[in-house]
Amino acid sequence: MSGRLEAQIAFLREADKLKSILRASRLIDGSRRENSAEHSWHIMLYALVLSEQAGPDVDINRVLRMLLLHDIVEIDAGDAPIHGHVDHAAMAAKEAAAAERLFGLLPGDQASSFRALWDEFEAASTPDAIFAKSIDRLQTPIANLVTGGGSWTEYDVTLAQLEQRVGVPVKRGLPRVWDWLLPQLRAFFARQG
Amino acid sequence: MSGRLEAQIAFLREADKLKSILRASRLIDGSRRENSAEHSWHIMLYALVLSEQAGPDVDINRVLRMLLLHDIVEIDAGDAPIHGHVDHAAMAAKEAAAAERLFGLLPGDQASSFRALWDEFEAASTPDAIFAKSIDRLQTPIANLVTGGGSWTEYDVTLAQLEQRVGVPVKRGLPRVWDWLLPQLRAFFARQG
Repeated sequence: MSGRLEAQIAFLREADKLKSILRASRLIDGSRRENSAEHSWHIMLYALVLSEQAGPDVDINRVLRMLLLHDIVEIDAGDAPIHGHVDHAAMAAKEAAAAERLFGLLPGDQASSFRALWDEFEAASTPDAIFAKSIDRLQTPIANLVTGGGSWTEYDVTLAQLEQRVGVPVKRGLPRVWDWLLPQLRAFFARQG
Repeated sequence: MSGRLEAQIAFLREADKLKSILRASRLIDGSRRENSAEHSWHIMLYALVLSEQAGPDVDINRVLRMLLLHDIVEIDAGDAPIHGHVDHAAMAAKEAAAAERLFGLLPGDQASSFRALWDEFEAASTPDAIFAKSIDRLQTPIANLVTGGGSWTEYDVTLAQLEQRVGVPVKRGLPRVWDWLLPQLRAFFARQG
């Protein structure tokens, strides 16, 4: 078992680097940018707390695993801010190579199952992945509303852009939460004039 | 549902503060102290990767939920370094009050179920909690071995102390991992003379 365990520990050590990948969003207290490891923890908490919003075809345990793994590719590929100018095809290729290398540190059976879960998340077409993507998109708007705009201000985001980039995925998996959030977003952007 | 959702979001916003609770341990690259939110993410990854080390009576999905929630009390109570001088009774009282306030932000049914899961983790007597505690204790030694001592050097920790504070809980839930780790710890402390 020693070779197998060595491979697993090598992967777990490498994963430490996700704590140094910074996102566009900031902590709610404004003190610094959020990193992708703590973001992953936070959205797993979102998923657990809001699991009652998921349809009966969603397996929350699979969703939690998807969210646990979903950003690991950023160790090699970096974070692509949702409101930034990103070459999506180039980014997808970089992330696929990252998945290959990073999950490839694991023993073959785990590399395959983790990769399959990440591919499913990225494709966002199963009920579990749709719910996971909605959760992933929800955390930043909740924080930005409290902090007076956060990354929206920095990236000069309009309500129409937000409805497209955040509203569409959130509505798919969390329609009632979107109904609750949208009036707050409208009020916020109305105040910005 | 709006009142219920408001309470859930209030809890999720408050949880953001866990990203500012610093632990004694550092990132593997040495750049800064680790915070309890990213630590929680990392040990969930440990639990998933090493789930094959758990006995048949361990439910890894419950373990992941325990680890997701286990440090939230630190938002009010702070982190008690394992090798620091801590008044354990006073700390337990502070953490219980923190659990009361923080989980109490949630709707009653969720407050109760999260609190029960946290109490179970703390008591460390069920198979799920024993495995979760082992995982929680494993991450820092793995990092300290790579970084040349880390928090062991800072807290002047001996191998005997480590065998007690880390060895005992790790052995309970991950005996084969402890068998693999112990010779490395011995070699490390032998080199320190």
